[in-house]
Amino acid sequence: MKYRIEHDLLGQKEVPVDAYYGIHTLRAYENFNISGQKIHRELIISLAMVKKAAAIANMKAGLLDEKRAKAIILACDEIISGKYHDQFIVDALQGGAGTSSNMNANEVIANRAIELLGGSKGDYSIVHPLEHVNLSQSTNDVFPTAVRIAAIRLLKPLSEDLAELQSVLQEKEEEFSDVCKMGRTELQDALPVMLGQEFGAYAQAVARDRWRIYKVEERLRQVNIGGTAVGTGVNAELKYIFSVIEILREITGLGLARAEYMMDPTQNNDVFVEVSGLLKAAAVNLIKISNDIRLMSSGPKCGLMEINIPEVQSGSSIMPGKVNPVIPEAVKQAAFQVIACDHAITLCAQAGEFELNFTLPQIAYNLFMQIGLLRNAIRIFIDKCIKGITANKDYLKETIEKSYSYATALVPYIGYEKATEIAKMAKEKGKTIREVVLEAGLFTEEELDIIFNPYEMTKPGIPGKRRLKGEK
Amino acid sequence: MKYRIEHDLLGQKEVPVDAYYGIHTLRAYENFNISGQKIHRELIISLAMVKKAAAIANMKAGLLDEKRAKAIILACDEIISGKYHDQFIVDALQGGAGTSSNMNANEVIANRAIELLGGSKGDYSIVHPLEHVNLSQSTNDVFPTAVRIAAIRLLKPLSEDLAELQSVLQEKEEEFSDVCKMGRTELQDALPVMLGQEFGAYAQAVARDRWRIYKVEERLRQVNIGGTAVGTGVNAELKYIFSVIEILREITGLGLARAEYMMDPTQNNDVFVEVSGLLKAAAVNLIKISNDIRLMSSGPKCGLMEINIPEVQSGSSIMPGKVNPVIPEAVKQAAFQVIACDHAITLCAQAGEFELNFTLPQIAYNLFMQIGLLRNAIRIFIDKCIKGITANKDYLKETIEKSYSYATALVPYIGYEKATEIAKMAKEKGKTIREVVLEAGLFTEEELDIIFNPYEMTKPGIPGKRRLKGEK
Amino acid sequence: MKYRIEHDLLGQKEVPVDAYYGIHTLRAYENFNISGQKIHRELIISLAMVKKAAAIANMKAGLLDEKRAKAIILACDEIISGKYHDQFIVDALQGGAGTSSNMNANEVIANRAIELLGGSKGDYSIVHPLEHVNLSQSTNDVFPTAVRIAAIRLLKPLSEDLAELQSVLQEKEEEFSDVCKMGRTELQDALPVMLGQEFGAYAQAVARDRWRIYKVEERLRQVNIGGTAVGTGVNAELKYIFSVIEILREITGLGLARAEYMMDPTQNNDVFVEVSGLLKAAAVNLIKISNDIRLMSSGPKCGLMEINIPEVQSGSSIMPGKVNPVIPEAVKQAAFQVIACDHAITLCAQAGEFELNFTLPQIAYNLFMQIGLLRNAIRIFIDKCIKGITANKDYLKETIEKSYSYATALVPYIGYEKATEIAKMAKEKGKTIREVVLEAGLFTEEELDIIFNPYEMTKPGIPGKRRLKGEK
Amino acid sequence: MKYRIEHDLLGQKEVPVDAYYGIHTLRAYENFNISGQKIHRELIISLAMVKKAAAIANMKAGLLDEKRAKAIILACDEIISGKYHDQFIVDALQGGAGTSSNMNANEVIANRAIELLGGSKGDYSIVHPLEHVNLSQSTNDVFPTAVRIAAIRLLKPLSEDLAELQSVLQEKEEEFSDVCKMGRTELQDALPVMLGQEFGAYAQAVARDRWRIYKVEERLRQVNIGGTAVGTGVNAELKYIFSVIEILREITGLGLARAEYMMDPTQNNDVFVEVSGLLKAAAVNLIKISNDIRLMSSGPKCGLMEINIPEVQSGSSIMPGKVNPVIPEAVKQAAFQVIACDHAITLCAQAGEFELNFTLPQIAYNLFMQIGLLRNAIRIFIDKCIKGITANKDYLKETIEKSYSYATALVPYIGYEKATEIAKMAKEKGKTIREVVLEAGLFTEEELDIIFNPYEMTKPGIPGKRRLKGEK
Repeated sequence: MKYRIEHDLLGQKEVPVDAYYGIHTLRAYENFNISGQKIHRELIISLAMVKKAAAIANMKAGLLDEKRAKAIILACDEIISGKYHDQFIVDALQGGAGTSSNMNANEVIANRAIELLGGSKGDYSIVHPLEHVNLSQSTNDVFPTAVRIAAIRLLKPLSEDLAELQSVLQEKEEEFSDVCKMGRTELQDALPVMLGQEFGAYAQAVARDRWRIYKVEERLRQVNIGGTAVGTGVNAELKYIFSVIEILREITGLGLARAEYMMDPTQNNDVFVEVSGLLKAAAVNLIKISNDIRLMSSGPKCGLMEINIPEVQSGSSIMPGKVNPVIPEAVKQAAFQVIACDHAITLCAQAGEFELNFTLPQIAYNLFMQIGLLRNAIRIFIDKCIKGITANKDYLKETIEKSYSYATALVPYIGYEKATEIAKMAKEKGKTIREVVLEAGLFTEEELDIIFNPYEMTKPGIPGKRRLKGEK
Repeated sequence: MKYRIEHDLLGQKEVPVDAYYGIHTLRAYENFNISGQKIHRELIISLAMVKKAAAIANMKAGLLDEKRAKAIILACDEIISGKYHDQFIVDALQGGAGTSSNMNANEVIANRAIELLGGSKGDYSIVHPLEHVNLSQSTNDVFPTAVRIAAIRLLKPLSEDLAELQSVLQEKEEEFSDVCKMGRTELQDALPVMLGQEFGAYAQAVARDRWRIYKVEERLRQVNIGGTAVGTGVNAELKYIFSVIEILREITGLGLARAEYMMDPTQNNDVFVEVSGLLKAAAVNLIKISNDIRLMSSGPKCGLMEINIPEVQSGSSIMPGKVNPVIPEAVKQAAFQVIACDHAITLCAQAGEFELNFTLPQIAYNLFMQIGLLRNAIRIFIDKCIKGITANKDYLKETIEKSYSYATALVPYIGYEKATEIAKMAKEKGKTIREVVLEAGLFTEEELDIIFNPYEMTKPGIPGKRRLKGEK
Repeated sequence: MKYRIEHDLLGQKEVPVDAYYGIHTLRAYENFNISGQKIHRELIISLAMVKKAAAIANMKAGLLDEKRAKAIILACDEIISGKYHDQFIVDALQGGAGTSSNMNANEVIANRAIELLGGSKGDYSIVHPLEHVNLSQSTNDVFPTAVRIAAIRLLKPLSEDLAELQSVLQEKEEEFSDVCKMGRTELQDALPVMLGQEFGAYAQAVARDRWRIYKVEERLRQVNIGGTAVGTGVNAELKYIFSVIEILREITGLGLARAEYMMDPTQNNDVFVEVSGLLKAAAVNLIKISNDIRLMSSGPKCGLMEINIPEVQSGSSIMPGKVNPVIPEAVKQAAFQVIACDHAITLCAQAGEFELNFTLPQIAYNLFMQIGLLRNAIRIFIDKCIKGITANKDYLKETIEKSYSYATALVPYIGYEKATEIAKMAKEKGKTIREVVLEAGLFTEEELDIIFNPYEMTKPGIPGKRRLKGEK
Repeated sequence: MKYRIEHDLLGQKEVPVDAYYGIHTLRAYENFNISGQKIHRELIISLAMVKKAAAIANMKAGLLDEKRAKAIILACDEIISGKYHDQFIVDALQGGAGTSSNMNANEVIANRAIELLGGSKGDYSIVHPLEHVNLSQSTNDVFPTAVRIAAIRLLKPLSEDLAELQSVLQEKEEEFSDVCKMGRTELQDALPVMLGQEFGAYAQAVARDRWRIYKVEERLRQVNIGGTAVGTGVNAELKYIFSVIEILREITGLGLARAEYMMDPTQNNDVFVEVSGLLKAAAVNLIKISNDIRLMSSGPKCGLMEINIPEVQSGSSIMPGKVNPVIPEAVKQAAFQVIACDHAITLCAQAGEFELNFTLPQIAYNLFMQIGLLRNAIRIFIDKCIKGITANKDYLKETIEKSYSYATALVPYIGYEKATEIAKMAKEKGKTIREVVLEAGLFTEEELDIIFNPYEMTKPGIPGKRRLKGEK
């Protein structure tokens, strides 16, 4: 391979002649072989957006000549459109608070701009990674700003996915609105509910997730671009500071605002703990729904057998015909991993010291992983599971009839203590509640038909009370 | 001891004759010896508030006679005022989704009401724990409602504590507004900042916490009282359902609302994951501030020695005169424990199945512990540490003078690469940046006095630029 | 109240005249109001054991006169026997690495020794908390040593509890050794197993826990007594250092050893992460067993209804006759909390800096809580649940007959693909595997009686193969 | 692209004609797009080892003809040597307890074996993925066995890395054995220690990690191969069961043993919680060491400036000459992520139900990630940081001289209370301890030269006592 020589504070180094990255990137690449994963593509795009905004602001402020500025802007646009992402080679879990990825962006943009201006890569007299591309900036304002932009850009589609999940659940709520089944508390038979109501309850939880994710964007909008190294803004001129945020707002199309107190977002990362906590809440709801679907679809002969989920693959290499709830399982796994990422983010956020927290690259890594996991999980949950769920309506009805839950319907008529005795007797004698009540002569068959109405038991009010009025 | 005999589904049992609790409570007490801790006093009060509201609503709906209702209401008022709390004997980590604490409340209220009506404890024909006190209710709507009320009542003062912390930090921001010191990134010397600015950044983070805690109350306002066992509202009449929430709003003075979809809060606990996540964000901010204060006050001779914190106790049983930063340490410990509680809450919330989540007592236990830990930590942080912090102003100034951070001030004048060389030379020769620059003849003493202004370096803009204009 | 005046580095303070603790304790009590909980009684006892050993060693080394030494030893013995524990008033979550609890012990012991020598509390010329009781010691060797002693003393009975749990599970393994039931993977019907085998598998996991807890003691035996403040042993004479560990071994009856490198246990706490991880493994096994028991006992009419667990209390305030699996629920809750404590311990252990980790009191707090929770959970699990489990033997047999699991028994005879077709056909037609096989004329009734033997299917080998040999 | 048609329980599907994987793999690939990562290469190799052992055992037992067996064995050998890994396309976070990866292995091996026998891929009459490759096996014994093998193979080199880290730390212990410095507790100046002693304490902790990782292999050796679907061994003949483990031991070169109770490792995963807990302990130790190195190397002018770490890259895009401790930072990040993975593993392990735990693929994913992160972190820690550390010996000496720690050396001579007064006076007057002592006429210069010997203060005993004997 052919090389060019570059130099830095520590000396010189061979860089592959075709590489857009330079010596700083290469050192970082060699220093950090930790996770084996690169930074997220949305973070690359967001870094280029910030660099573009800075170039324009520097140009407008008369700090950067137009020729160089335009070449830099063009290079940024190419990266934003998806080009040169393979040149971002630094490990996602890099030490140094993002300096290496900022340097990586500076170098790729500089070398591409040099090319656009007809020069050879590495000839930094044409465009310099630090003196031109990074002008008026520091990693410590660029990187936190880019992470926030990337987060917002990733959260938006997640919010839409949650909306879709909510809507699919509500379709099921509608579809199963008259499918009466046994409701359970603590896994024990409780009182009848509609299967549709259960999907409705899931939809409510997901609606909350959607709302939270939608709203949290507001918290991420405050960025510290212009704050430079420690948030004081030193070496960034005021006219640059005031314009760069306007330009960035335009480029991103997002309602970004400059933090009034730029030292705050430079050093504090509680907002990511907040966002991660909300993603964790979404994960928890997905787990709860998966728990129920796995239990309801248990069987096919020795389980609860309440619903059927679509068969998406054979389930066993030894048991012919076995089909497993692999989709809710994968959803649970994704959700568990989201919870683990929240843990990582918390550990990172608490490790801040003075004007910076060196762990921001790791926070970003985990946050973007959380969003990706949730999006992937929701996608397959909708397409490969929830949409295709069917109910074993007749079987569900049967199970209610033989249950003891009618005892509760008796309470308003005969009191808790007496109803308890009836229930106890039914259990001991292996009879139904109806049979025991009739034997005891407490109600007639006709009265029980009115009181023991499972459909009425899924609504507020005392079952049968209105129709029995005056009689008892 | 003297006993009375009570009976239940499982048989009969001796209850101490003076006890206000009854057989259900006693069984639960014997069953659950897990944490050795009782439920939080605010939860007892909140349970009594819910019971009072239900009694009034039942009375108004004609479901409960006035005599019993009034006795129940009076008994509830006594509990709300702090009486009979020693009768709530069930372990905080109880199985059964709160049934035991609900039963405990029912029994204490019933027996006290019986007394008020002139009867003897245990004579449930006068007032029955289930048929009268628990009328139109289920643990599964009472307990989640009470937990939310208690949470709001506890979060309010936390929000106020955070406001006070913010204000004390801002006083320090003001006090130290002209104390220039070395800012640090990744523990390495970076650029000058004002000590006041650092306290300002802490205050910003705490302001966010305060706002979050203040706002989260909205999420807890939706309660499921009236939903009874599985959230469908069976056995609760509509006139009761509609009035109980109004009455409860009045009793608590909180803006409670009945959840539109009562099955949702009966089974889903994501809202507690959300709240806990926000408390965790506050914990993370407290840790960050403690990290800084511990580092800044390190010494007294071989540390950073930037600030002094009040001495609150001797620090060593072997080293005379040693004083340790025990308050920030205790704050960090409290914050670590808050993070651990968040973990417990997440584990609980993901364990829901069908119409209920059996872990709600544990969620409550951890949530209230989090709030208590934060409140206690903030209290001592304010009173015994932050308020009394003083700065070693002269020493701080000295440290800046000998640092290399002035090299950054050179960048706008001589470029990044050349400034790097100057810094390198200073390190190698053991000289100051000023000395090297003068030796190299790059600037005059007078120019450097203008450029190397640490105070100017704590603000946006290029230090010295305006005053040097036209000259370079 | 009457007071005496005591003084320290910071000034003077009124101490209640009857208090055995002194000014250092009182300051700490006022400084730390964090958790509201005191240190564990075993930690108090262990501190007294260490103090006693030090007094004897000091006396033998000629550093402490016999009169004072004997008074100190007597005072320690009283504390070891359970006296004066109410004098240990400092919060368990104290800042300062345990200094306050060490001071508390020094003061209580000194004042009690003073009394024994006929003096008045507070007259430290008779026995001084630091100069006599703490002689040759530092918090930083006393406290870590005491925490390890307390941990070993608490882990021993936990190991015995686990042994008992294992043995109760094995009794059930025996009892249910011929109860055939459907085995499930991923909640779907799989292949028959014996209910006894399931309990056997639980017992295996618990046996591992028992072994781990039993063995981990070895890791805790290495103590740093004699290392004083930073582990170097400064101010402790060699003859003291060598004898104190021997004496402590005798007093505790434990196989303690002095760490060769005393600076290591003074500053490193990975061993507690290790122990906590093993307690977490035990928690995980308890959760798994609880999961199964809750599922198997689900019903009474609409669940799996495989086993019955003892009824220990009424389950509902609204549903008469409902009984919930509150014991496995409480066990799960305890286990969740154990996992959360592991989290706290990890956060603490990673916060070490230089010669000490200030969080050791918090590590101890969480570790002892874990052990207590596990012991309490195991106790009720054994006594109130597992021992009383009964099986619904006939119902279990029925469920196997109607299942599709016999298809697997066909694989060795007709191959996986053909067996899959049979299973598919049975599902589609709503028939049993037996019916479909007979209709297809693949085997005779007699052959199927041999092949479809659920009891044989719970053992290694191909069901029926030996008996059918030569025939197919 | 060209396709071949394959079919399964759910119907038929086009598979790329060149693919070694088949329809089951393809469905799984389409079903699980969760993490975007494939299973670990060591897991692929381990699966092939298990398949090879099974083929040999089946052949020996007369269950599989020699021709097919040899082709299967050859195909396995190729995979073990690193071939066809790109054919393992299923996501690491797959639902279904590993069935999809087992199916993937079965299909790749079958198709390669078919090729070796001269057939065309997809012609499963020649070699069938299930009937031949998977013969006598189930995912539920193959996958847990393979995960354990892969874990042992990955832990071995980690143990060696830890040994190397220990040895490098011990070299530094030796190198810095006479560099006296201030020891710190709670970040406050305490007593002198040798810098070498600090590295010695790190080495001790790492030695413990090494030992733990080395020993834990024993716990992973028990495998359940032969247990088939639920651990009962159904459909696996005894002669196969007894020989397969022997053969597997030979192939892997590991001391594997068949679990006596095969249902146990099929369903219980506590052993992975145990292993993960030990990896977490190692992570905690790496964090502690990183904490210290970051603090000691803080500066270059306004920090502790005790040691210098190698400069591996420029540290700032705005501050010329700034170098950051990026390697200890990356180490801390890796360790944080290891802790988060432990959390994921715990969540997984507690989710087991009945005869299986569906999350095993996720446990494997996190476990292998932990090991990889630790290995990578240790590698750079050794090579790019610890080896190159140098000490600022003179500066360290200076700091001790001006500290107050000599007050402790006075305690054995003048008592704790008096020494406290001296320390207090020194602080107040801004003098050294020596100065105050001399002014007070307590000791002569000559005596203090003997007592105030920092080197002696780093060892057990009372500094100067022997030499001063008889005089005081």
